[in-house]
Amino acid sequence: MEVMSVDDANTRAATSRLIERAVGEDDLATVHDAIADLDVEHIVDVLERLDRTDRAVLYRLLPKDCAIDVFERLDPSMQSELVRGLRDDQVAAIFADLEPDDRVELLDELPATVASSLMRGLPAADRELTATVLGYPQRAIGRRMSPTFVSLRPDMTVEQAMAAVHRRLDDAETVYTLPVVDDGRVLVGVVGLRAVMNADSGTLVAEVMTEPYWARATDDAEEAARRCAELRLLAMMIVDNEKRLVGILTVDDALRILEIADSEDQARMSGTEPLRSPYLATPIGSLVRSRVVWLLVLALGATLTVQVLEVFESTLDQVVTLALFVPLLIGTGGNTGNQAATTVTRALALDDISPRDIAAVVAREFRVGLSLGLLLGGVAFVLTALVYEPSIGAVIGLTLVSVCTLAATVGGAMPLVARTIRADPAVFSNPFITTFVDATGLVIYFLIAKAVLGI
Amino acid sequence: MEVMSVDDANTRAATSRLIERAVGEDDLATVHDAIADLDVEHIVDVLERLDRTDRAVLYRLLPKDCAIDVFERLDPSMQSELVRGLRDDQVAAIFADLEPDDRVELLDELPATVASSLMRGLPAADRELTATVLGYPQRAIGRRMSPTFVSLRPDMTVEQAMAAVHRRLDDAETVYTLPVVDDGRVLVGVVGLRAVMNADSGTLVAEVMTEPYWARATDDAEEAARRCAELRLLAMMIVDNEKRLVGILTVDDALRILEIADSEDQARMSGTEPLRSPYLATPIGSLVRSRVVWLLVLALGATLTVQVLEVFESTLDQVVTLALFVPLLIGTGGNTGNQAATTVTRALALDDISPRDIAAVVAREFRVGLSLGLLLGGVAFVLTALVYEPSIGAVIGLTLVSVCTLAATVGGAMPLVARTIRADPAVFSNPFITTFVDATGLVIYFLIAKAVLGI
Repeated sequence: MEVMSVDDANTRAATSRLIERAVGEDDLATVHDAIADLDVEHIVDVLERLDRTDRAVLYRLLPKDCAIDVFERLDPSMQSELVRGLRDDQVAAIFADLEPDDRVELLDELPATVASSLMRGLPAADRELTATVLGYPQRAIGRRMSPTFVSLRPDMTVEQAMAAVHRRLDDAETVYTLPVVDDGRVLVGVVGLRAVMNADSGTLVAEVMTEPYWARATDDAEEAARRCAELRLLAMMIVDNEKRLVGILTVDDALRILEIADSEDQARMSGTEPLRSPYLATPIGSLVRSRVVWLLVLALGATLTVQVLEVFESTLDQVVTLALFVPLLIGTGGNTGNQAATTVTRALALDDISPRDIAAVVAREFRVGLSLGLLLGGVAFVLTALVYEPSIGAVIGLTLVSVCTLAATVGGAMPLVARTIRADPAVFSNPFITTFVDATGLVIYFLIAKAVLGI
Repeated sequence: MEVMSVDDANTRAATSRLIERAVGEDDLATVHDAIADLDVEHIVDVLERLDRTDRAVLYRLLPKDCAIDVFERLDPSMQSELVRGLRDDQVAAIFADLEPDDRVELLDELPATVASSLMRGLPAADRELTATVLGYPQRAIGRRMSPTFVSLRPDMTVEQAMAAVHRRLDDAETVYTLPVVDDGRVLVGVVGLRAVMNADSGTLVAEVMTEPYWARATDDAEEAARRCAELRLLAMMIVDNEKRLVGILTVDDALRILEIADSEDQARMSGTEPLRSPYLATPIGSLVRSRVVWLLVLALGATLTVQVLEVFESTLDQVVTLALFVPLLIGTGGNTGNQAATTVTRALALDDISPRDIAAVVAREFRVGLSLGLLLGGVAFVLTALVYEPSIGAVIGLTLVSVCTLAATVGGAMPLVARTIRADPAVFSNPFITTFVDATGLVIYFLIAKAVLGI
């Protein structure tokens, strides 16, 4: 989603297409001139639309200085793929220029041998910093934090603090949020550069610092990043179990983590495995693989409905009209369930509720589902009674009431159950609820039908 | 999602419950002591779990200084509701303390009379700033930007620039990202405070500034915010049509905009209207209203399936077995469609593709759908052929191939069509695709059945 006038967008797109074509035809001169005046963001867009080989070609043509900026913007999977296409010295150069946290992200993607040889190539200081980050488990925030921060002492004067900041302007990850630690490196506070600049030079850091927001280095990376974003922090402090400061998570890194996490959640909610590379750059085969497993699982679940219908085949045989409403009934059940699941999942993500509230949630969703069922069931009864006959109308109406109530209650409870058993609420939710509601809904439908129609 | 050890979480929850109970029992002394040592974030959590009246009670007990921080964190809808519960002088006080952009957000929620009286109560300077923001259309970024920024001139020395920053430390929205404008207030560059601090005092701003990222004040707020977040900017410049600087969008405001926008998208994708207040604080009635319209629309769409089945009622009557597979077939079709729609919607959001790529997308989804159809159809054929008879197996297999291909293609194209006609891809997608696929899928099913079984 870009913010620019239509003509800007068109010229951009034109340039993109020009480059894509030129790369395809190996007309490198044209490419070279074309990329000269593109901004980093635009180059990334173009790279993401090219296939593996063309991407390597284009990347090699980038001017040194912007090459690294571009590299940092690419998905790790794409970075590792690029690296394989470059000469060792080129790779070593890029690797040395990366921030420790970006370096680790890349290492995770590379074959162990390549990774270790790259590590050996690093200057001792960088290697040490990278090692500390590498020390934390895969999904932990310690793995994604930056170990290069400026820390102040509570007994420093503001003047000394500013001096400390000036010394680290070149290498620190950020100088806008400044952690304050005691002699034992334990985090005791945090202060914004602005507050420091705004105090008299004699003031002590202790007087201007505030309570720090922090996460443990072993905490889940996504949760830490989400908290950093929700608290609207420019940076969150990362500490070890003794609350010693070990790193800092800047909002831009938090956003990178969340961008990836959110596309994963969204993918899983609709029953696909998340893509590791941009859509157009993903081979058809991978797209199929990312979806087929879930489809099979869901289809397998759906065979439940076949079995249910088989049980009631004789009933269907007597009143074939009943078959007409099956899609409508299970469809409505599924929609009601998804509505509840999405609302609750979102409330969980926003911290509006916690698994502790399950009783309250179930109670609310039961009432919501019942109300929805009565509304829809009422409408359905009238219509079907007119078009077909009152008895059929009664069956449809009663079924909708029960199915909506069931679907909303189950749909509302599901995400909380998922969270409690530490499963991803997104994964657990919609498709599964649908499958469940389909099967149970049909049973309810036919039981009501048998009762009302007396078959 | 909070990042803290389990015991922290438990004590927090305990305090929350204690306060909730105390407020309920009007035991204000207890409440007063309990909130004394809570952080802003925690107080917000508690407030969001209380009902309208209790919330007002608790809010009035908050210490002055933290009251405003808490207020800024609440959803606009909740802010306006609180305001109605406070005395005029209290409201005026809060209103004066708010940032211009937050003020506008609140004004949008309040009845016109209240709003205008509040505006009249403002000091002239604040009123003017607020007015400029109020001047932009509802959904425009100009409405959400901050008009209080520090701007530099290209011919300033770094020393002069630092002086300018120091003068505005108290009131500017941010001093970390500094816009550079010419004599006509036209945006010519941007420079980070860090870069300014890192240059020699004699250096000119022109030498350290870089190309600015900007959005027009009339651009859509969500798109501008998303771009600010995707570019990992601490702040994005907002300009008028003559590219004159009119405001600045800081990443924390961008995140606030996106948080609300995303929950809306997510809600709409599952066919519910977004909630204007936290889940537990939303009355059952509003929950029902937020879902019933969509359910009715979708149910109405689903009556299509009833009509289709009616057309083929005689076929069903002859081979009632066909009815057994209806839920399985339309379910699989719906899932395939949703998978495609979600993947493409996400790719759109991440800027990996644009409506221009519709041909490419359709071509890819066609191939993906066909592959999925062949896989699932193959499996289904074998199983059904064994359990029932080869002819039925053939019908199911062939139907799955066609339905999957159709669903993936339509599901993939839908979001791009939505974007082209400027509709929200999220709104347009999943439930509608399902409804469409259900009806067409059934037609295909019965046509294949008639052909293969020769009825």
